[in-house]
Amino acid sequence: MEKRKISENVIRRLPKYYRFLSELSEKKIDRISSVEISEALRLTASQVRQDLFNFGCFGQRGCGYDVEFLKKAIAEILGLNIPHSVIIVGAGRIGQALADYGGFLKEGYTVKAVFDIETEHIKNIKAQIYNVAELENYLAANNTDIAVIATQKDAAEEVAKRLVEAGIKSIWNFAPIDLYFGEDVAVENINMSESLFSLTYKSKKVNAF
Amino acid sequence: MEKRKISENVIRRLPKYYRFLSELSEKKIDRISSVEISEALRLTASQVRQDLFNFGCFGQRGCGYDVEFLKKAIAEILGLNIPHSVIIVGAGRIGQALADYGGFLKEGYTVKAVFDIETEHIKNIKAQIYNVAELENYLAANNTDIAVIATQKDAAEEVAKRLVEAGIKSIWNFAPIDLYFGEDVAVENINMSESLFSLTYKSKKVNAF
Repeated sequence: MEKRKISENVIRRLPKYYRFLSELSEKKIDRISSVEISEALRLTASQVRQDLFNFGCFGQRGCGYDVEFLKKAIAEILGLNIPHSVIIVGAGRIGQALADYGGFLKEGYTVKAVFDIETEHIKNIKAQIYNVAELENYLAANNTDIAVIATQKDAAEEVAKRLVEAGIKSIWNFAPIDLYFGEDVAVENINMSESLFSLTYKSKKVNAF
Repeated sequence: MEKRKISENVIRRLPKYYRFLSELSEKKIDRISSVEISEALRLTASQVRQDLFNFGCFGQRGCGYDVEFLKKAIAEILGLNIPHSVIIVGAGRIGQALADYGGFLKEGYTVKAVFDIETEHIKNIKAQIYNVAELENYLAANNTDIAVIATQKDAAEEVAKRLVEAGIKSIWNFAPIDLYFGEDVAVENINMSESLFSLTYKSKKVNAF
């Protein structure tokens, strides 16, 4: 496959393509046209064609795209084709929901360990359960690709620092605080309150008509 | 306050400003400069000044912004100054975590009712608990601003249709499917798997260095 420099915007759309292709794959659909993709994802067909052209010549004019081939190619670009070991720090309801989240295992993400300041309340979880005091020991002994932060807001920053100092390069943050560690650590912040505020603003507009 | 047409990009940043200002307010900080805001939110100072200029003359040159005044003004624009009644459909771990989520109540969002196909397992929730068969009856009798969908993927679309038919104008969707009902219904999709895939891609890049 030809290597190109892929823009941030294209990258941001790739998970959407991947999820849609996975749905098609589950439904045993073999081929899909750029028009069909664009309608499902509410993009323009030419944008879809341009985006996918970035990854080489997937589509033949008039034939559409081979779903499995395209899904596999995007998975490789995103890094989904290799298994990922995950730990979760903070076992409140969000942390436990994530530990339990079926989608992880399916896509090659395995929650190996869950950490909290108290561990007695954690139930029905397949991962190993540790006191957060064990965090550094665990990370020194176990290769870990992604750390999820699902602590209270007040604890999140310190936990994040400990993770980064222990060598973690990838943080998925659910605490209501933006974490940032420069270029050397990948961070995705799930800002639920910001999403709720955006929704509130949008609904204000909807109700105004 | 002067009314201007505010761009989508500015609107998308407002929840960030609001959250940051709330943090300052909690810390009893009265005034803040555009430089300080820009550093905390990783924007440029001129972008911050431009963004906030959209909402009238908040800042005096050299004096910074009055935190409470700015927070209140942004809350009004976002619609956070009025109370919001919320229902949640789907009481798995995510649904229960949301029903329990302290941030809601603080910001004027009250979870009034939780619906599921089975209700015996739902515990420690302040909201009323109903079988999802009661959804339409409940909505006919109770003014509801926001409906949260926290069902399995397979059920999400049908639940969303029922909500919209029952008059819901605002949907906060946690199911791994993009919902869209045109201009008349405000929807925010929290795509956790897409966020995870983006993180995986970013971390692949980080590890390549």
